[in-house]
Amino acid sequence: MTKDLYSIPDIIMSRLPVYYQHLKKLKESNKTYVSSEELAKLTGFSSSLIRKDLSYFGTFGRKSYGYDIFCLFQQIRIIMGFNYNKKIILIGAGHLGQALAYNKGYIERGYKLTAVFDKNPKLIGLVINDLEIKSISDLENYLSENKVDAAILTVPEAAAQKTADRLVAAGIKAIWSFAEVPIKVPADVLVEEQLINEGLCKLSVKMNQPRINKSEVEEDFDCEQK
Amino acid sequence: MTKDLYSIPDIIMSRLPVYYQHLKKLKESNKTYVSSEELAKLTGFSSSLIRKDLSYFGTFGRKSYGYDIFCLFQQIRIIMGFNYNKKIILIGAGHLGQALAYNKGYIERGYKLTAVFDKNPKLIGLVINDLEIKSISDLENYLSENKVDAAILTVPEAAAQKTADRLVAAGIKAIWSFAEVPIKVPADVLVEEQLINEGLCKLSVKMNQPRINKSEVEEDFDCEQK
Repeated sequence: MTKDLYSIPDIIMSRLPVYYQHLKKLKESNKTYVSSEELAKLTGFSSSLIRKDLSYFGTFGRKSYGYDIFCLFQQIRIIMGFNYNKKIILIGAGHLGQALAYNKGYIERGYKLTAVFDKNPKLIGLVINDLEIKSISDLENYLSENKVDAAILTVPEAAAQKTADRLVAAGIKAIWSFAEVPIKVPADVLVEEQLINEGLCKLSVKMNQPRINKSEVEEDFDCEQK
Repeated sequence: MTKDLYSIPDIIMSRLPVYYQHLKKLKESNKTYVSSEELAKLTGFSSSLIRKDLSYFGTFGRKSYGYDIFCLFQQIRIIMGFNYNKKIILIGAGHLGQALAYNKGYIERGYKLTAVFDKNPKLIGLVINDLEIKSISDLENYLSENKVDAAILTVPEAAAQKTADRLVAAGIKAIWSFAEVPIKVPADVLVEEQLINEGLCKLSVKMNQPRINKSEVEEDFDCEQK
């Protein structure tokens, strides 16, 4: 039975990396099986939600039974496309870009970082993680000669849209964007916008909750258009 | 009316950074008001979900009316605790740590990065973003003399738990963790685990969906414990 997985709901998709992270760690331990209750303790999701998510992909776990860790790990790798080889390039070799050039997470997910681009003459020609930083003016030329599946965007806000436009025009169909502004792309181009400060925001909300509850903010909020 | 905001559901909390990002951009434009429908187009959330989220915080927007952008922006800043000053330190000055030392996102969210620590003698003493990297052996001493609200953890997997243990023992109550492994902390310590490769994972899933739909993967998944 082939399920129609062409549109995995975004909410399930956002939980897959969490399952992957925990299953990876479980696989490295001596355990063979894990229950949905144990996964619930590890992930913070409810056990019924976990069973529902995994049944979406064909594993109908019953409440008192467990999941085969290795099987589930492989299943999630397959769903996430980690066994397919994908070439990825990076645009923007600033501090964050350079950190992502050294990211150890590509290989296990099937990605190979093949080129890094920047416009800064002081960076062009430098070697980071065995890759020589190329000039951004060579981008279209490179993409006409090399098959590339995705691009990482770590350029400043002001350059984000026009850089995305160039990538799309040159045939790129998938962008992992760290630009702090949303970018507009055609409907057939995939974009994942990663807000680097998302965790910082959520930490601040949580740190702030006792303050709000202690009535330090007492007026009604009402921002409705008058 | 003071709402009990002590436990904002995690699912709403995860949307707040997205609202913040878009409202920030809208505020910089000439618009005064934005409708829930426009916010829906920008964020990808449904307009009814947006109205529901915002009514949680006291703004009961009606369907044909808009929200005052500036008011909503300020409201979200207040909820997220961005107007409170928080001191944050960084542990682990590798590539990602150094990128986060240059992160421009702290100030607008009320954070001030006050110290960076590492164990590598080649890094100790270097100055990054006007901060001299301190030795990790000085951590407890620093924390006994300086009030710090949160810590950023960008250390390798193997060091993550023991570093977190040291932070907790020294009184830190909030950790923004980039360690690729979950860390265990007491119940009164907040942790935000940021998976740096989350966007990469989600991009891979989306890139893979046409493949799955094209029946390249045809067997049933069934990882239930037998």
